[in-house]
Amino acid sequence: MPVGTQGTVKAVPQETLESLGAEIILGNTYHLYLRPGHEAIRRMGGLHRFISWPRALLTDSGGFQVFSLSGLRKVTDDGVQFRSHLDGSSHFFTPEHSIDVQIALGADICMAFDECTEYPADRQRAEESLRLTMAWATRSLAHFRAHRGEVPWLEPSDPKGCCMQCFAIVQGGMYADLRRQCAERLVEMDFDGYAIGGLSVGEPRELTLEMIAEVLPLLPKDKPRYVMGVGYPDEIEQYARMGVDMMDCVLPTRAARHALLFTSEGRLNIKNKQFAEDRNPPDPACSCPVCRRYSRAYLRHLTQAGEPLAATLNSIHNLAFYLGIMQRVRASLHAESAGAETQLKADG
Amino acid sequence: MPVGTQGTVKAVPQETLESLGAEIILGNTYHLYLRPGHEAIRRMGGLHRFISWPRALLTDSGGFQVFSLSGLRKVTDDGVQFRSHLDGSSHFFTPEHSIDVQIALGADICMAFDECTEYPADRQRAEESLRLTMAWATRSLAHFRAHRGEVPWLEPSDPKGCCMQCFAIVQGGMYADLRRQCAERLVEMDFDGYAIGGLSVGEPRELTLEMIAEVLPLLPKDKPRYVMGVGYPDEIEQYARMGVDMMDCVLPTRAARHALLFTSEGRLNIKNKQFAEDRNPPDPACSCPVCRRYSRAYLRHLTQAGEPLAATLNSIHNLAFYLGIMQRVRASLHAESAGAETQLKADG
Repeated sequence: MPVGTQGTVKAVPQETLESLGAEIILGNTYHLYLRPGHEAIRRMGGLHRFISWPRALLTDSGGFQVFSLSGLRKVTDDGVQFRSHLDGSSHFFTPEHSIDVQIALGADICMAFDECTEYPADRQRAEESLRLTMAWATRSLAHFRAHRGEVPWLEPSDPKGCCMQCFAIVQGGMYADLRRQCAERLVEMDFDGYAIGGLSVGEPRELTLEMIAEVLPLLPKDKPRYVMGVGYPDEIEQYARMGVDMMDCVLPTRAARHALLFTSEGRLNIKNKQFAEDRNPPDPACSCPVCRRYSRAYLRHLTQAGEPLAATLNSIHNLAFYLGIMQRVRASLHAESAGAETQLKADG
Repeated sequence: MPVGTQGTVKAVPQETLESLGAEIILGNTYHLYLRPGHEAIRRMGGLHRFISWPRALLTDSGGFQVFSLSGLRKVTDDGVQFRSHLDGSSHFFTPEHSIDVQIALGADICMAFDECTEYPADRQRAEESLRLTMAWATRSLAHFRAHRGEVPWLEPSDPKGCCMQCFAIVQGGMYADLRRQCAERLVEMDFDGYAIGGLSVGEPRELTLEMIAEVLPLLPKDKPRYVMGVGYPDEIEQYARMGVDMMDCVLPTRAARHALLFTSEGRLNIKNKQFAEDRNPPDPACSCPVCRRYSRAYLRHLTQAGEPLAATLNSIHNLAFYLGIMQRVRASLHAESAGAETQLKADG
C-alpha cells in the first residue's frame, strides 16, 4: 500500500497511482486530523471524495504519529495528550476519538488505537505498553461497532456502514510470548483483520522476522493479515510468501525523493556520477511509464538540478517496482495453489 | 510555449505536456550549458532524446539569463564574460559559442545571441545595446549557416540540418524608431523567423503593446513572429489576435508554484481560506485533467500542506488554460479566414 500521509502519495497524482495498479492507499489520521481537519473532510463527503480516490483507503489510528512526531506527550489509561508538530496546539486522543476521526474520514479500514512500543523496551515496559494497547483495542472496537456508518454519505445499500472495517494491532515489543498472548486475545475479540505493529522500529531484521513468524500462525487465515511499516523489496516479498496479505511503507516514495531507485539490478543512487550519460532506463527489466520513457541520465540530471519532476518520476518507478513485486508474488501463489488443486484431483 | 528551463517544464511530466497539446517547449541554453553541459547532451543524442520530447524544441540564446542571473558580467564587442550562478566558475559566451551550444542541443529553432536591453534605458544606452545586438545577429546567422547540422544524429533525409532554424531577436529598448530600424535590418538578413525581445522587463503594458504594434507589421507574415517572455492570459490573447504566432512565458508554471491559478473566472489564489471547503473544480469551464478530477479544496489543502503534488496539479491546470486560449484563438482566426474566403467567393 503506497502511503498517502496527508491525503496524497507524495508527488504522484491519483490517476498515476490508478494506472500503476494501486488498489488501496493509506491516509494518516494524525496528519489529516490536524490539517485540514476530519470534520472538514466529513463535510466534504469523506476522504475518498476529498482527494478523489475511488479505490480503497486505510487510515492508521494516529498512534504511531502521536508517538513519533508530536511533542510533550502525556499518556494515561484514558488516552494521549500531545502537542501538534505544526503549531504546538494541545490535543487529546482517546481510542474513541481516534475511531471517530477515522469514521469521519470515511476509511474503508480503520485501525484500533494502539501504543507503538519503542525499541528497545525492557520486559516490564513492553508488558505495560501491551496492557494499554489491549485495553484500547477493546474500547476502539466497541466504539467502532457503535458508531460506524455515522457519516452523511452512506450508500442506501449499506445503512449501517457495514462496509467499514476495523483492524486490531498486535504489539508486545520483541517478546514472543507477549506477542502471542496479544494475538490470541485480539483474535477472540473478532476484528475484521489483524495487523502486526511495532516492527521496523530499529530492531535487527532477524527479530522482525521472528516476531512475524511467531504471530502470523495465530491470526485467522480468512481475514487480512497486515504487517505495518515494512519494508525493503526483499522483505515485502519474503513476508508475502509467509502469508502476509498487506503491507505499507513510505520507503518507495521517501527513497525516491532522496534519489534512491529500487531495480531488478539492486539499488541505484541515481545522483551518482556514473549515471551522468547512462541512456539506459532506470531498470531495463521494468515496464513502468518512467522506464519506458526516460533514461538514468535524465533522472540524474533532474535530481542534480533540484527539479520537482525528479521526485515524481523516481516515486512512480519505485511504486511500480513495489507493486510489481506483489503482483508477481500473487501470481506465483495462485499458480502454486492451482497446482496443488490439480495434484489433489489427480491423487483423488 | 511552456518553458522547460532545465530540460523540464517544472513539475510536469512530458507525457502530460503531450496530452495537453503542447507542440513545442523551450529549453534554456544558459542552464543546459552549465548543467548537464551541451557536449554531454550532444553525446546523448541531443536534447529531444535526452529529455524524451519528440515534438519541437526552441532554445533561447542564453543572453537573457547571462544578463539576469549570472554575476560579474563583462560585455565586450566580442561577447560576454560571466560567472555561473551555480558555482561562480567563469565562462565566455560569444554569438558563435551560443549557436554552437544550441546546435549541440539539437534545437529545432535556435535564437541569435542578443543583448536584452534593460528597462529603463536612455537613448544612448539603447542605441549602443542595439548596435551590439545587430552585430551579434550577423555573426550568429553566419555561424549558424556554416555549422548547422553538425550533430551526430542527423536524419539521412536532412544531411545539412536544414530542419534547424535560426530566429533573430528585435531589440531597441522602448524607442519605436530603434525598434523599426532593427526589424528592417534583421529582415534583410533573411532569418527563418523573428522574435521581439526586451519586452516584459518592467515597462508599463501600454509600452509593451506599442512596441509590438510598431514592429509586427515590419516582420514577414509568412515567417513565424514570436514575442518573448509574455504574458498574462489576456495579453497573449491580445497579441495572438494582432498576428503574433509564438509566445513563451514562465508565468503559468511559476504562478502555479505560488498557488496562483488562472481561470475563466479570473485569478484564484488557491491558498485563500475561502477555498478550504470549496468542492468546485479550479475552473468550472475547464476540461483539463485537474479540473475534471480535483476540487479547489483539495488543491488548497495540498498547497497549505506543502505537498509537491500542488505544484504539479496547479501547473497542469495553468498550462491547459494557456494552451486552451491559443487553441480558441487559432480556431477563431481559422473561422474568420474561412468566412473571408467564402465572402470573397460569394462576392466573386
